[in-house]
Amino acid sequence: MATDTAATRTDESPRRYVQPDVDVPELTALLDGKYAAVRELVRTNLAAYASILDEAETMTRAEFRERVKQVVVEMAATGQTGMGFPEEYGGGGDIGASVAAFETLAFGDLSVLVKVGVQFGLFGGAILQLGTEPHHDAYLADLVTARTMGCFAMTETGHGSNVQALGTVATYDVASQEFVIETRGEQATKDYIGNASEHAELAVVFAQLEVGGRSEGVHAFVVRIREDGEVVAGVRIEDDGQKMGLNGVDNGRIWFDGVRVPRTALLNRFADVTPAGVYESEIENPNKRFFTMLGTLVQGRVCVGGAGINAAKVALTIATKYALRRRQFEATSEDQEELLLDYGMHQRRLFPLLARTYALHFAQEVVATQLHDVFSELEPTPNTEKNRRELESRAAGTKALGTWHATRTIQECREACGGAGYLSVNRFAALKADTDVFTTFEGDNTVLLQLVAKGLLTDYASEFEDLDQFGMVRYVAGLGVETVLEKAGVHKLLERIKDVLPGGDEGWDQEAGLLDPEYQLAMYRFREDHMLGSVARRLKRGIDNEMNPGEVFSLVQDHVIGAARAHVERLVLEAFVERIRGLPDGDLKVALNLLCDLHALSGIEADRAWFMEHGRLTSQRSKAITREVADLCRKVRPICADLVDGFGVPVEMLRSPDLVG
Amino acid sequence: MATDTAATRTDESPRRYVQPDVDVPELTALLDGKYAAVRELVRTNLAAYASILDEAETMTRAEFRERVKQVVVEMAATGQTGMGFPEEYGGGGDIGASVAAFETLAFGDLSVLVKVGVQFGLFGGAILQLGTEPHHDAYLADLVTARTMGCFAMTETGHGSNVQALGTVATYDVASQEFVIETRGEQATKDYIGNASEHAELAVVFAQLEVGGRSEGVHAFVVRIREDGEVVAGVRIEDDGQKMGLNGVDNGRIWFDGVRVPRTALLNRFADVTPAGVYESEIENPNKRFFTMLGTLVQGRVCVGGAGINAAKVALTIATKYALRRRQFEATSEDQEELLLDYGMHQRRLFPLLARTYALHFAQEVVATQLHDVFSELEPTPNTEKNRRELESRAAGTKALGTWHATRTIQECREACGGAGYLSVNRFAALKADTDVFTTFEGDNTVLLQLVAKGLLTDYASEFEDLDQFGMVRYVAGLGVETVLEKAGVHKLLERIKDVLPGGDEGWDQEAGLLDPEYQLAMYRFREDHMLGSVARRLKRGIDNEMNPGEVFSLVQDHVIGAARAHVERLVLEAFVERIRGLPDGDLKVALNLLCDLHALSGIEADRAWFMEHGRLTSQRSKAITREVADLCRKVRPICADLVDGFGVPVEMLRSPDLVG
Repeated sequence: MATDTAATRTDESPRRYVQPDVDVPELTALLDGKYAAVRELVRTNLAAYASILDEAETMTRAEFRERVKQVVVEMAATGQTGMGFPEEYGGGGDIGASVAAFETLAFGDLSVLVKVGVQFGLFGGAILQLGTEPHHDAYLADLVTARTMGCFAMTETGHGSNVQALGTVATYDVASQEFVIETRGEQATKDYIGNASEHAELAVVFAQLEVGGRSEGVHAFVVRIREDGEVVAGVRIEDDGQKMGLNGVDNGRIWFDGVRVPRTALLNRFADVTPAGVYESEIENPNKRFFTMLGTLVQGRVCVGGAGINAAKVALTIATKYALRRRQFEATSEDQEELLLDYGMHQRRLFPLLARTYALHFAQEVVATQLHDVFSELEPTPNTEKNRRELESRAAGTKALGTWHATRTIQECREACGGAGYLSVNRFAALKADTDVFTTFEGDNTVLLQLVAKGLLTDYASEFEDLDQFGMVRYVAGLGVETVLEKAGVHKLLERIKDVLPGGDEGWDQEAGLLDPEYQLAMYRFREDHMLGSVARRLKRGIDNEMNPGEVFSLVQDHVIGAARAHVERLVLEAFVERIRGLPDGDLKVALNLLCDLHALSGIEADRAWFMEHGRLTSQRSKAITREVADLCRKVRPICADLVDGFGVPVEMLRSPDLVG
Repeated sequence: MATDTAATRTDESPRRYVQPDVDVPELTALLDGKYAAVRELVRTNLAAYASILDEAETMTRAEFRERVKQVVVEMAATGQTGMGFPEEYGGGGDIGASVAAFETLAFGDLSVLVKVGVQFGLFGGAILQLGTEPHHDAYLADLVTARTMGCFAMTETGHGSNVQALGTVATYDVASQEFVIETRGEQATKDYIGNASEHAELAVVFAQLEVGGRSEGVHAFVVRIREDGEVVAGVRIEDDGQKMGLNGVDNGRIWFDGVRVPRTALLNRFADVTPAGVYESEIENPNKRFFTMLGTLVQGRVCVGGAGINAAKVALTIATKYALRRRQFEATSEDQEELLLDYGMHQRRLFPLLARTYALHFAQEVVATQLHDVFSELEPTPNTEKNRRELESRAAGTKALGTWHATRTIQECREACGGAGYLSVNRFAALKADTDVFTTFEGDNTVLLQLVAKGLLTDYASEFEDLDQFGMVRYVAGLGVETVLEKAGVHKLLERIKDVLPGGDEGWDQEAGLLDPEYQLAMYRFREDHMLGSVARRLKRGIDNEMNPGEVFSLVQDHVIGAARAHVERLVLEAFVERIRGLPDGDLKVALNLLCDLHALSGIEADRAWFMEHGRLTSQRSKAITREVADLCRKVRPICADLVDGFGVPVEMLRSPDLVG
């Protein structure tokens, strides 16, 4: 009965609970992980440039843009922003370190973060990943110091998600051995390009390559757009104007009117054009070639996901500290008003978000490690290609969940701080405005989840890259449901469940303890399995009924996205559970288990309708989960200050003198 | 099975569906209702001052504040802002018209809206409602023209929600026949006060009245804070600084250091102090007196709720028009990319929000009418007091749902417009930043829903105002659950269900058609009834178990708020259903029925876990509802442009040249 008092303990909990005593430095060390020193360097830099948070409010847009540039250049000099580049060009030679540095930077002003992302991640990353030694020699040393600034000119007014359909064209002119870059129509305008409006001297321009009258698909070219600060002939640049946030980044539009660049401007790691005008590539399939190029840029997604999660930490730190100071209305005592955090509802608002932030932190740790490992391989192995695709999928999924979590958490924390949360000095204004576009850039979250689903449904088949929405529907329909599930490996997930849980295949959903991580994982795995299977069946049925594949896709789309989400949620929970398993017994493990239970069960609670609809939750057990979530919140209450302090957000980044002071 | 294609029609729909042809002017006329002429005046004014939307971006904060003031003064001259004041003072003498004008103003810049709200709603409203004829004669004519500007100094740094505990003190000095206003401690600083920092000459100050050493509770005083633009002696004012949004409003902090005002400065409609220092009031109970005073200010909540709903209309108009122009990825055709709105997911994202906006519009119409009727009564009737309490509760609930809806809708619409949605020219930046605080000001939404619950659980008992969180718990526990339910009238709701639905009391949840409004209402009523009953039982059980009432409240708080929300949701649906029932048959009725079904069923879908947990939905029927929601979205698709055009948002307010142009 929902009418049971929430205080009634469920009898499913086998663990004897003793309130843990959290050692904050130990917790921070755990969260910082392998790259603790890198993160400390960034924290020090953030504190040194803390005035930027005020300057974001007090300066004009033009002044602030210059200030942000200056901070980026000065931070570059500390080595903080170049960690992912080879040492011979002044970099740190450690991709994992570069992700850690970027994530940590997200505790501070996010215009600085995004400017760093544009310069070193997008522009620098494209030169590094798509270019070859001559490009590296020509550009890397100067871009690592930010002596040369650049931009990443991919998105166009007409195409943001479907970048294979870009309208900018690069035509090879054999006579002069040059490419001619042309903006064909207003929809082909390069748009929203960071660094373009003021600071970039160079642009990596993505354009349809035409050689000998034949279109070879989208390729990247290094194009000079400014010389000594002046826009060069044939290039027109316009500012994108005021934005919701990130106004320290100079986003702009670029038009190319027959701009000529030498043949060597083509970033030719995956394809080249001979002087005589012969197009050459080791990757024959043009779709595969394009997605291979795109795939090398996956680091951007990994970084944005991590940045979103860390921005959420800032919001939670402020809101939690405020709720531990602020009192309003009498409740348990007649003498003193009640602390906000002693209200059950307030705990319910903040603590599941806190737990989920921890879960996403550890999931992010996994994807960042995968990125490091895959991109640190010196020689490709037989698994390289599949590993890359799985990395891309995981990066896409973690980015989507991490950035939606940021939007939601920052909003809830703002509301939980009332009117005070509305004052800019208390950080939420900037956090909210600046992070808002995280759900869109580096891949629209909805489109990213479709990418995840495509990978799952096709098991990253060799035809994977050829499959647009049409193609995926046809492919899955042709394969048959069982084959899809077999390939996706979901049956294996369920076999694990049978083995580990009391009650076996039939009774596990009733008999296992709510706080048993195997039970929680079984629920997440079952959902993923079932959703993928039913998506495959619906796609197949649509095709069997001779519907247009596009129509089938449109009908099933929310289900496709739901399956992808279920998959990523399972990965997140597994990452959290696995990380805790590896820890020595002790208070920290108890505290993290509490958060893991809260994350897992509030996730099930949020989707309990689905579990009931699919026979995996009785209404009685569903209510028990709701009670357990409330109970877990009460257990988090005494240690919540330590749990947010553990994030290690520099105190200078919190501002909010009246909220946390 | 969830694996059914969504195209499979459920057989529950008795209505034969023919796609309606929506007449947009007819729809606008229906939405505008009785006050169409007032709304047209405001639309004309909005268009005339459309440049304010650009000025919000291009001007400095100081310039923009002056510009907003100027626009407010000039709009006042058209009669638009004074409609709620008596005609003898230059007003329009029509409260309903004043709400309609305010709501419509929310299509435009929201700093203008909030400045109007502060000047005419809060400051003017306090003088009108709490003052008596001498105050009206002294101030109303000048404030209606905005010749005199004022502020409403209630909130303090330490108290926003619990305003009965304010720390500012007004001590009566018999010798001089003056009140001495004093800010006692930093927590008693008046804070976030709109108009305070720059423009207000007068303040209505809420302070603890002390007469002859005795505290009489919070009362309101007219205090001059500026003379010819200079802050007067004894008053200190500080700017609240940059805010997330609404930067055209000059919010500030005020400290009073022994400021003396004449005895007549007390707004004495409900209580007075004689020259000799005798406190007099017709309302003996000090809590009742305080809440009676507060209750007269309910118009502010009604207005903010309506403003939130109208801001959501602006966002939906832009996002819908964009999704009808923007194409991305091939889907149903190989020649052309797919329109965003032909994706099932995109329909799912926008259309339930569109339907809910309509539902809230009609719910707002009901509460605005109630406000007009209650406040237009010349003589109190036996029902006046209860009507006022019900109005206050309804206003609180509609404000909470309407403003949360605005936050959610604007966010979803921004994301649905991708990167373009992030540019300020496309309106979402301002809509998001400016409306964010709507969920907080004029009553924090969570606190407002607690107020709704208190009213329901105590049936607005005569002791109502005496009941703090403690008191409510004790009262409900003492009353007994059956009495609570009887008083709340919820059993009556269920009796209606039995009479009207096929299957009667036992079978209605299975046999009734999903598109039968009686079925939908039965579901909403059942939820409300059941939640209230179980809250009452939990409160009683806690007290019976000798728990501290505050602790009981904290444990049950989310349930209390859930019950209140269920109540308001029922009122919203009833308002929509009733409004449609009154319409003549025809296409418009068909279209609105579509939206009403979509609103009702997506509301049930969102809470289907609860309905399954409480035996009112089988898992099969739950899935059928999900399919029906998708089907309704597809039916809305062909008429969605008309449905947003029907809102009548002036085209100048949309801006977004590249999105809607």
